[in-house]
Amino acid sequence: MNSLLEFDKTPSYQSVRDAAEQLRGIVVRTPLLESKALNERLGARLFLKCETLQHTGSFKFRGAYNTLSRLSAAQKAAGVIAYSSGNHAQGVALSAKMLGITATILMPEDSPAIKLNNTREYGAKVITYDRYRQSREEIGEKIAKDGNLTLIKPYDNYFVISGQGTTGVEIVEQLKDQNIHADICAAPAGGGGLIAGTSLALRELSPRTKIYAAEPEHFDDTNRSLAAGERVQNQAGQQSICDAIVTPTPGKITFGINKLTLSGGLVVTDDETRAAMRTAFHYFKCVIEPGGAVALAAFLTGKIDIQDKTVVAIASGGNVDPALYSDILKEGDQ
Amino acid sequence: MNSLLEFDKTPSYQSVRDAAEQLRGIVVRTPLLESKALNERLGARLFLKCETLQHTGSFKFRGAYNTLSRLSAAQKAAGVIAYSSGNHAQGVALSAKMLGITATILMPEDSPAIKLNNTREYGAKVITYDRYRQSREEIGEKIAKDGNLTLIKPYDNYFVISGQGTTGVEIVEQLKDQNIHADICAAPAGGGGLIAGTSLALRELSPRTKIYAAEPEHFDDTNRSLAAGERVQNQAGQQSICDAIVTPTPGKITFGINKLTLSGGLVVTDDETRAAMRTAFHYFKCVIEPGGAVALAAFLTGKIDIQDKTVVAIASGGNVDPALYSDILKEGDQ
Repeated sequence: MNSLLEFDKTPSYQSVRDAAEQLRGIVVRTPLLESKALNERLGARLFLKCETLQHTGSFKFRGAYNTLSRLSAAQKAAGVIAYSSGNHAQGVALSAKMLGITATILMPEDSPAIKLNNTREYGAKVITYDRYRQSREEIGEKIAKDGNLTLIKPYDNYFVISGQGTTGVEIVEQLKDQNIHADICAAPAGGGGLIAGTSLALRELSPRTKIYAAEPEHFDDTNRSLAAGERVQNQAGQQSICDAIVTPTPGKITFGINKLTLSGGLVVTDDETRAAMRTAFHYFKCVIEPGGAVALAAFLTGKIDIQDKTVVAIASGGNVDPALYSDILKEGDQ
Repeated sequence: MNSLLEFDKTPSYQSVRDAAEQLRGIVVRTPLLESKALNERLGARLFLKCETLQHTGSFKFRGAYNTLSRLSAAQKAAGVIAYSSGNHAQGVALSAKMLGITATILMPEDSPAIKLNNTREYGAKVITYDRYRQSREEIGEKIAKDGNLTLIKPYDNYFVISGQGTTGVEIVEQLKDQNIHADICAAPAGGGGLIAGTSLALRELSPRTKIYAAEPEHFDDTNRSLAAGERVQNQAGQQSICDAIVTPTPGKITFGINKLTLSGGLVVTDDETRAAMRTAFHYFKCVIEPGGAVALAAFLTGKIDIQDKTVVAIASGGNVDPALYSDILKEGDQ
């Protein structure tokens, strides 16, 4: 049990359920909000699952805590390492702190300051690297080996994916409380852990709900991989405002799930994402970071027909630097 | 029943309970959030009751719906009028729309654009006035009389105060779910309806919790009235960023309750409020408007000792213009 091999198993609905038990009373049961005014404007019923209000400001805490809490005593004593653009970093850092584990986190040197600072504030040791020239996988695996640390990958990990899936369990339960059935659910996809775990929950608990991965332009690897039936890479050298989800290719375990459970991918431009962040400010009073707003953006811009439908967008994170957020709000006045 | 006389009765714990029944399934059970990082910084356990996430972006929807839903058929058919700086306006407008009632709303011509626009979007007829030269009470009562409309006062109304008090019921229930007892609860006070209703719930359900009204500098009429033992006025001609709560004097019914239930008032400067809005952005990913952030500001700036205590700040509203919000966020970088 708890060997590294176990991390490579394929998650299932049952492993998501196990995660929900493990995380009970630990994670925030985040609200599923709707805006009557926005619904009217859209001619649809749109729910926002606010993982922005999760501990550390993103869903990543779910998977991180689920994983770290299951390490053996020896693994806990030796410590963990993670590489992350910032949200997984914070999730691992806080989980480690809560469980008395030392954490080393490898982050891009150009990560948003809020993410770098918060990760340090949670007590983790932060090491930065150049994401355009260095491979975080190589650096991370070397540090892990040298220090006998357990590497907590951001998405290709059985317990991580299962933990993220508890978001989907909550969505279905919260809708059921109101006797509502969702026609469509979309979540932002980087490596694809959130949508993979969520889809395992939805497929079991709400089989008629169609599930989509939302991605930024130039980083629509999951979308194109789903179309191709195999994992494809994004073109190198592209940029996006959505720092949280600019991964090069879908995860191996996550794509193995997503190719079976998803109906497709939805792709939005950075400008559409910025507009969605303003819409969330206006109608939901919720701060969403760029990468966390792409599913909402896809619905707002009609990337899929939502007329007269009930749809759920997961707002996956809210860790955005105030200067950037200010700029994006101000654009709305132009 | 439902005569205007009934509006003047004094609310009680029982009337708050009745409101909770009336509002079940209608209002958002807003989250009670805490931030582990902020708690550590403060050396306290601070919960934020996010009424920013209530329908219309403020707690005012609770009291408005509770009141409008109890009007007689004749009153409903004739329509309602309300005067408000903007949050009660939206609460009445949306409640009226949901109940098929026509609403006329009297608002200061310098209300935040977001509040004016939203109130119109909810289908209300908006009439503006100059709040420095005209009396909204006089104008409102004249329009009500001329059109046989029922006047829905923003705080001095039995059903309004009782509805706002359901916020307090939720706070106690949400804390109880975690086996937590609050030492202190503070809420922003304009006319004092929110804190009056909330205090009725807390006094019954959590009698050891000390309850405070939070107010902006120059508009600390509740604070000074509590000290004086009678209702006093604010000095005319003052300004504050906290547009939602710059009332001239405490309500008659609300003060009758507050003088019995509150431990005192907490007063903050506009700069302290702005800093609290930035703290809420950073730690809670919540957009709070200035008037909604004064209770949080009071705790953050040590207006009362919170060391090692468990405290609840009600974030009462989130309707702030994006340009102002941008400016306030940017100040944090200086």
